[in-house]
Amino acid sequence: MIAKETSDQLSKLIGSEKVFFREDGKLDQNTFDSYGLDRTKVYSPKYQILLFPENTEDVQKIVKYAYENGIAIVPSGGRTGYAGGAVAKSGEIVISLAKMNKVLDFDPFLGTLQVQAGMITKNLHKEAEERGFYFPVDFAATGSSHIGGNIATNAGGVRVVQYGLIRDWILGLTVVTGKGEIFRFNGEILKNNTGYDLKHLFIGSEGTLGIITECVVKLTKPPKDIRVIFLAVPEYKNILDIFKETHNFSLPLLAFEFLTDYCLKKVKEHLSVSDPFPESSKYYVLMEYEVQDEADEEKLFGILETITEKELITDGSIAQNSRQNETFWKYREGISESLSLAHTVHKNDISLPLRNMEAFLADMEALLATKYQGFEVALFGHIGDGNLHLNIVKPKELSDADFFERCKSVDPEMFSLIQKHKGSISAEHGIGLLKKDYLQFSRSEAEILAMRGIKAVFDPKGIMNPGKVL
Amino acid sequence: MIAKETSDQLSKLIGSEKVFFREDGKLDQNTFDSYGLDRTKVYSPKYQILLFPENTEDVQKIVKYAYENGIAIVPSGGRTGYAGGAVAKSGEIVISLAKMNKVLDFDPFLGTLQVQAGMITKNLHKEAEERGFYFPVDFAATGSSHIGGNIATNAGGVRVVQYGLIRDWILGLTVVTGKGEIFRFNGEILKNNTGYDLKHLFIGSEGTLGIITECVVKLTKPPKDIRVIFLAVPEYKNILDIFKETHNFSLPLLAFEFLTDYCLKKVKEHLSVSDPFPESSKYYVLMEYEVQDEADEEKLFGILETITEKELITDGSIAQNSRQNETFWKYREGISESLSLAHTVHKNDISLPLRNMEAFLADMEALLATKYQGFEVALFGHIGDGNLHLNIVKPKELSDADFFERCKSVDPEMFSLIQKHKGSISAEHGIGLLKKDYLQFSRSEAEILAMRGIKAVFDPKGIMNPGKVL
Repeated sequence: MIAKETSDQLSKLIGSEKVFFREDGKLDQNTFDSYGLDRTKVYSPKYQILLFPENTEDVQKIVKYAYENGIAIVPSGGRTGYAGGAVAKSGEIVISLAKMNKVLDFDPFLGTLQVQAGMITKNLHKEAEERGFYFPVDFAATGSSHIGGNIATNAGGVRVVQYGLIRDWILGLTVVTGKGEIFRFNGEILKNNTGYDLKHLFIGSEGTLGIITECVVKLTKPPKDIRVIFLAVPEYKNILDIFKETHNFSLPLLAFEFLTDYCLKKVKEHLSVSDPFPESSKYYVLMEYEVQDEADEEKLFGILETITEKELITDGSIAQNSRQNETFWKYREGISESLSLAHTVHKNDISLPLRNMEAFLADMEALLATKYQGFEVALFGHIGDGNLHLNIVKPKELSDADFFERCKSVDPEMFSLIQKHKGSISAEHGIGLLKKDYLQFSRSEAEILAMRGIKAVFDPKGIMNPGKVL
Repeated sequence: MIAKETSDQLSKLIGSEKVFFREDGKLDQNTFDSYGLDRTKVYSPKYQILLFPENTEDVQKIVKYAYENGIAIVPSGGRTGYAGGAVAKSGEIVISLAKMNKVLDFDPFLGTLQVQAGMITKNLHKEAEERGFYFPVDFAATGSSHIGGNIATNAGGVRVVQYGLIRDWILGLTVVTGKGEIFRFNGEILKNNTGYDLKHLFIGSEGTLGIITECVVKLTKPPKDIRVIFLAVPEYKNILDIFKETHNFSLPLLAFEFLTDYCLKKVKEHLSVSDPFPESSKYYVLMEYEVQDEADEEKLFGILETITEKELITDGSIAQNSRQNETFWKYREGISESLSLAHTVHKNDISLPLRNMEAFLADMEALLATKYQGFEVALFGHIGDGNLHLNIVKPKELSDADFFERCKSVDPEMFSLIQKHKGSISAEHGIGLLKKDYLQFSRSEAEILAMRGIKAVFDPKGIMNPGKVL
């Protein structure tokens, strides 16, 4: 009954309406479970106490109590991750930021919004839009992900090629460390060279140093108008050549995505969209440009002309209206959903230096051919950033257990190839539980030791998201 | 004779041609001294061993030796700092990166250069230019500063308003930690979410965690054409209004600088430039825009028209050729040089949230009027970034000692004002020796403790630039 006691004490500290004990029946078991899980589906949740703090001070009270009593904590955001970073499977306290979803401040001059970390990303987009600004970090899961979780995992998405990662959009951060201290990093100043930058240490730390409770995000001007282009590309090599031709062009390139024919087939099967072109193609590329005026529209045709003349594409189309924009984007953003509707998949989210990409792909195809012989493979991603999403699809005849066993045995070979070509075993998804055993393929032993030393500074009792990352 | 022994041992380790012992007479004393000093002029150098490693492995050998023998190290770059970060005044070994000035790699596809950390910033500009690219971090001292020193101090400069700080342009970093370990952070990948970002920890760490030996910098397209505009502005408030009108304009604003009439007077006196306008003005603003074509030139006139109609300026001029560009820039970039030619000054390099700037300036003026009554004050800076350079000019009748004593007694009051308005006591210059006692005005006690903990991880014996920052 220790958990019950803890729950009672936490009720006294922050108010019983913010404390949910599994057995108190205030939430059904499935909902309760869902707060201790992300999208990995490999782990089972096991925990008893779920908290909904409303502000930074609530979080501080909880963490101080947990610190004094040596109780482990899992910070819980929108739980859209793919690395098990938000999984509570060892009796931890789950702190959901879901009630911390308010705008705290807005500076129209500088163009910044200060919000609580539990704000859903799409709502942050809306709050920016309503104020005449634009928050450019965007990806398929923004309807449920929290901005705090995005920051804790250094989210990327479809517009990194133009706007960078979320790291580039965070001006200030409020965190509660594993000791229960409140740190307010930087606030809202643009320049501040006063010692080590601790803000960047917390961005991407996956909740293992502390809990992000508030942030000041930078905003920018919305793109005036956008044009989406969809291309049929016969060879992989051409994709890189198209990128070379287009990314240093005089129009801002907002996205440069690619997918294989197999991915398009899956989207067509499950999301009832029509074919983009009369003839199918081995690869497809989606480009999105910002246009200001008619002169820019002319430039757009110029791009298409150039890559057509150089025989880099077999077909291409500029979306004529917002509905067609959406369709083109669905070809790309519907892939994960389509795959998960009909298949069990093993996800790899990797990145390579662009110039090593071709050599890596050759090595990768050889590995796939020998180790996953006959398996279907969905390959797509943010190719402009050197970021590939490689999904291995489970054959119908294989059991889930056998499939994941096989993947687990092949992963180290895949990661060795990535290491050989100086890439990263996790471009966007992070390490969490899922990639923890493979961290040494992307970070040296000395670096991992240093990370442990840093964790000990902010979380000396190791109560913050234990077992994740390190 | 311990220093002599150390010098002999280091000669054996890295070769005697890279080792200079003060008494061996290979360098005259003034030159020898200069490697242990920056531009602060408050400190006297005192050290005996000066080393010129040629690569990362040389640096590792030196640091390992120093680590084993508990010898303190000062990393020495172009020594253009204003905070005493590169001062060797306690018998440290000085490691100059001056011989580590080579290009190691270039990726035309991604647009990156890998160079050794001792490359002079201006030479990096040239290397980028020769390859058709542009490295946008720029400031008055680029002719002598090293890129490694720029990174160690997170340099800003005149184009931050458009391109950000140097932090935003560093993709990969090679460092030798205080334990003599070589860390190669990130390499050349754009996305890498595998644990804590240690690269950002070293950027701005002022040599207190380790020595930056190599870096991969991102490059961008050069601006097609630039136009420099110089404005006469009657009131401080108008400067912010002009910034509001112009920084979200559809042309890229590359710089937005301001200076007072006093600064312009000093530049005219010492650098023989003519008046910009027939009538003098209390304030001046320099704006720099990128233009692509004639339509952009029209937009430029539009900007001038708008701010004229709103009566924000009393006069304004667009430079008609590159010589006039240079003259306009000289009004701004010649200030520090002009002041140092004729005066002793006390420099403050501070930043504020833009929206607090007016209230801060009112407080600041009241403080100046009471504490520096009758002193001349030079105020200028990167106002678009909220960054002010406030130089207090020593009156002729006061001795240097009395002047610096006075400044030292007023500084805490100035820093309290900055703290009250949520600003930074060091926007660009860093902490070094000079601001170390005032760090708590910008960072909390808990943050400073955490920084000490992090230093202990990378530099457990405290041999890396001891006494600086923390």
